[in-house]
Amino acid sequence: MLEQSLSRANAAKRRGRPGYDQKSVLKIAVDVFNKHGFEATSMAVLADNLGISKSAIYHHVPSKGDLLRLALDRALDGLEAILTEPGACQGRADDRLEYVLRRTVDVMLDELPFVTLLLRVRGNTEIERVAMTRRREFNSRVTKLVETASTEGSIRSDIDPAITSRLLFGTINSIVDWYRPQGAITATKLADDLITMTFDGLRLPAAARAS
Amino acid sequence: MLEQSLSRANAAKRRGRPGYDQKSVLKIAVDVFNKHGFEATSMAVLADNLGISKSAIYHHVPSKGDLLRLALDRALDGLEAILTEPGACQGRADDRLEYVLRRTVDVMLDELPFVTLLLRVRGNTEIERVAMTRRREFNSRVTKLVETASTEGSIRSDIDPAITSRLLFGTINSIVDWYRPQGAITATKLADDLITMTFDGLRLPAAARAS
Repeated sequence: MLEQSLSRANAAKRRGRPGYDQKSVLKIAVDVFNKHGFEATSMAVLADNLGISKSAIYHHVPSKGDLLRLALDRALDGLEAILTEPGACQGRADDRLEYVLRRTVDVMLDELPFVTLLLRVRGNTEIERVAMTRRREFNSRVTKLVETASTEGSIRSDIDPAITSRLLFGTINSIVDWYRPQGAITATKLADDLITMTFDGLRLPAAARAS
Repeated sequence: MLEQSLSRANAAKRRGRPGYDQKSVLKIAVDVFNKHGFEATSMAVLADNLGISKSAIYHHVPSKGDLLRLALDRALDGLEAILTEPGACQGRADDRLEYVLRRTVDVMLDELPFVTLLLRVRGNTEIERVAMTRRREFNSRVTKLVETASTEGSIRSDIDPAITSRLLFGTINSIVDWYRPQGAITATKLADDLITMTFDGLRLPAAARAS
């Protein structure tokens, strides 16, 4: 028993700081990638930020590229799962679209560093290109939802659905540039505000005006 | 006369390719900065892209930093000028806000590479920090317009004006990521669509629906 415990302790020591697992290494790596850029981040810089040796990182993950892939997968898995939820599959298309956009804001804010990394990817490596293809596929399924809602007559058809989709994703994706989890606005209120602005509009009808 | 012409021809030769002036050097430099990043672009790379020597570039502009400053000034001068136009200063605040947003889209698409560069600046140098301060000042004047319209009761007050402003700039600024001047949509129609979505909303009232 004692021997087993010691051997486990030694294994933990070899792996670096106790308490680190692949998930926590990934979390810190993504923050470093977002701060300095993926290309500019060496394994040595990562090791510095983790306070462990480079070889200790290799206990958790085979390469820097694998950290990127795991991080991008986490963001994309979260987004793609939305489209399988009942709210995204059942009911009128405008309601489904609203559901998907709200949940996209949720996932984005729940997985903020991972989605931030995803949105900054430019296709420099195969891993990045695969992620970009999945992201485009997600966007294109949302564009189809806009088309359906427009055909149903539940949202306006005087804007090309592809443009509506671009503008909606523009509004949503820009959130990562300024949102801080400790800030004054909750994720739910922010999603409400975004849906209110884009679905109902900012301008009040004359009848509702104070003056 | 002949002597003067020859001397002028020699001066032109010394400066590199005939036809280049500071404006055209700037235009090409900004494209290279946007493609490779400002930091990653050396004067040698610039010279390669211009097809002239490094010393020929110095005939047009004292340093790489000056090219950046000139480019950022051009974007910011264009944006700031909007706020002095009659449409931005006279009338109801919601109309002034609409005017400023439309004109922001105009200026952005007229000066696409310059505004793209401005939006990518991260404050790594004093030149970038000065530009970011001017950009924040522009945004903050638009936020004040949102506040006034909200107080007037011409736009909704259930969204914090600072959030409205963030979402509006998010929608507008994202255009630089996908808009191509040779594409299917004109700048005017895009500005119309953006105002329609954010001011009137995408959702059609039940009465207007086909089904």
